[in-house]
Amino acid sequence: MNKKTGTEISSLGEFGLIDRLTARLEKRNATTLKAAGDDAAVIDMGESVMLLSTDMMTEGIDFDLSYFPLKHLGYKAIVRGINDIIAMNAKAEQVVVALGVSAKITVEALDALYEGMEFACKEYGVDLVGGDTTASLNGLTISITAVGRAKKETVVYRSGAKEHDLICITSNLGAAYMGLHLLEREKRVLSGVNNPEPQFEGYDYLLERYLKPRARVNIINALSEEGITPTSMIDLSDGLASDLRQICKSSECGARIYLERIPIARQTSQLAEEMHIDPVIAALNGGEDHELLFTVPLSMQEKVMQLGLVDIIGHITRPEAGVVLVTPDGEGIALKAQAFDR
Amino acid sequence: MNKKTGTEISSLGEFGLIDRLTARLEKRNATTLKAAGDDAAVIDMGESVMLLSTDMMTEGIDFDLSYFPLKHLGYKAIVRGINDIIAMNAKAEQVVVALGVSAKITVEALDALYEGMEFACKEYGVDLVGGDTTASLNGLTISITAVGRAKKETVVYRSGAKEHDLICITSNLGAAYMGLHLLEREKRVLSGVNNPEPQFEGYDYLLERYLKPRARVNIINALSEEGITPTSMIDLSDGLASDLRQICKSSECGARIYLERIPIARQTSQLAEEMHIDPVIAALNGGEDHELLFTVPLSMQEKVMQLGLVDIIGHITRPEAGVVLVTPDGEGIALKAQAFDR
Repeated sequence: MNKKTGTEISSLGEFGLIDRLTARLEKRNATTLKAAGDDAAVIDMGESVMLLSTDMMTEGIDFDLSYFPLKHLGYKAIVRGINDIIAMNAKAEQVVVALGVSAKITVEALDALYEGMEFACKEYGVDLVGGDTTASLNGLTISITAVGRAKKETVVYRSGAKEHDLICITSNLGAAYMGLHLLEREKRVLSGVNNPEPQFEGYDYLLERYLKPRARVNIINALSEEGITPTSMIDLSDGLASDLRQICKSSECGARIYLERIPIARQTSQLAEEMHIDPVIAALNGGEDHELLFTVPLSMQEKVMQLGLVDIIGHITRPEAGVVLVTPDGEGIALKAQAFDR
Repeated sequence: MNKKTGTEISSLGEFGLIDRLTARLEKRNATTLKAAGDDAAVIDMGESVMLLSTDMMTEGIDFDLSYFPLKHLGYKAIVRGINDIIAMNAKAEQVVVALGVSAKITVEALDALYEGMEFACKEYGVDLVGGDTTASLNGLTISITAVGRAKKETVVYRSGAKEHDLICITSNLGAAYMGLHLLEREKRVLSGVNNPEPQFEGYDYLLERYLKPRARVNIINALSEEGITPTSMIDLSDGLASDLRQICKSSECGARIYLERIPIARQTSQLAEEMHIDPVIAALNGGEDHELLFTVPLSMQEKVMQLGLVDIIGHITRPEAGVVLVTPDGEGIALKAQAFDR
């Protein structure tokens, strides 16, 4: 293939590629309730529905083995898979794993990877039920497909947000992004140094958020116990700006979020300042937060706040108002699309 | 990671790696009926069971884009996924696709890949319900996860073969392997030639078997219509020798197959002779046949032969007899294990 005779994928923008590729797909089985366009597909299984989601991580893009311990990588791969099911308000029960492994990957390395995967599975009550390991010319590729189960009527899609709904997020944002920046900085600084001793003091929280994200099963359990069903929900993996735009696109609505309400951890702000990065950019566009972004009806405000697990950062508006970030002085800034791979 | 301080994956042998990695896995959900060790996992869904299987193909190992048209590659990727479900005697209904794409892959290339995937989905009545596209530093990686459905009592595992059962295969073997050799030869011969014109005359069948394998849904339909339930079944992807050994390992039995009964197509023998390859080696170890290998009780012999779709190549024996190929002069040769990645 000659790159010059074709269109670069990056030129299609954030939603363009998926829209283009999925436009041709037809639905042939009545059991297919929801295909592309959400965190997981939804398949009718009679008594219940099955949620199905696939995710790929490639070496050098999604992780750097020079500082990402394989045990953590296995853990994170599983958490990413589980979170796509949780974002549909469902419980993940099974995962399958496909690995592409180059000659540099030893048996011991795969042991560590599987140890981390099994550790995450144990923590979240999931079974690793199968896999495929194939050779690869270049590096490590991990593909996780997660399967979940729910009652049909409790599944939450990206498409249900309504005007005046409250926009909620779990935990603070931008920490994983700054954790990644810290690891990259120490790698750069210590390149070529014998017995390198990276300086991570004071930033352990950022490293943990990047290397060992959580699956937010506690959130959907808490919502369920309080009788709160979100109107829409998405896994925060691409950054708040991008993921909120996904909700607004699917729900055909706009949104207003307030800058001073976006929770940013102290370590995140501190390192961002040290590295001359705007912490708000880290929170909006950093990605890999692996928290939940969801909407609830305005009437649920008190109930949601009583959970103590969630921050309300804004509300849903009519579509023509766009997706807007409101600064402390009341200025509205339109939130932009992101690049293809983040 | 330092390769020298660890164990190379290839040293573990054919079954060693999977056994080692899956040994630590625990089962936590009662809905997990069968985990690793078959063509697909089996998950209880109440009225029916769900089959789940994942498969990865990497550029330079599983395909060469210099001669593998992307439309065919998409088609083949789906067929490989579907065949894992069919090998459990079930119907595939949904697939999800994860792609790792490097900068050389254009939008038009992905269009062609998706066109081929959708073509296969249409042919076999499957819905492509979701996917993930991520950047990759090196080449194209395709991971397919297929989902199928069956009644619990009709699922066929690798583990059900019994002494005296007949060993059956669909279609002839080794053709895909010789198709691959032909493509590799022409690539080598024409390397550096302007306007290369590869010589494929007389070998179109071999190319088709390699580039566009079939999903054998017609076989399981025919078996079902005739009331024949195989005692064990496997997708012929790693080569007859390796896949038969998998059946024997899972079923704790031995097998005797007869060399002169292994069907080999005329084009396969002809090209093998031309390229100084033993056609029996191509049939036994070539792999990528994507046909079905299954066993039926001896009492089904007539019924199976009347189908006209199947060859009986031998029978199941006691485990201590081993897995043996019988030559025309009556000599028995033990069938060996294969390498890791084929």
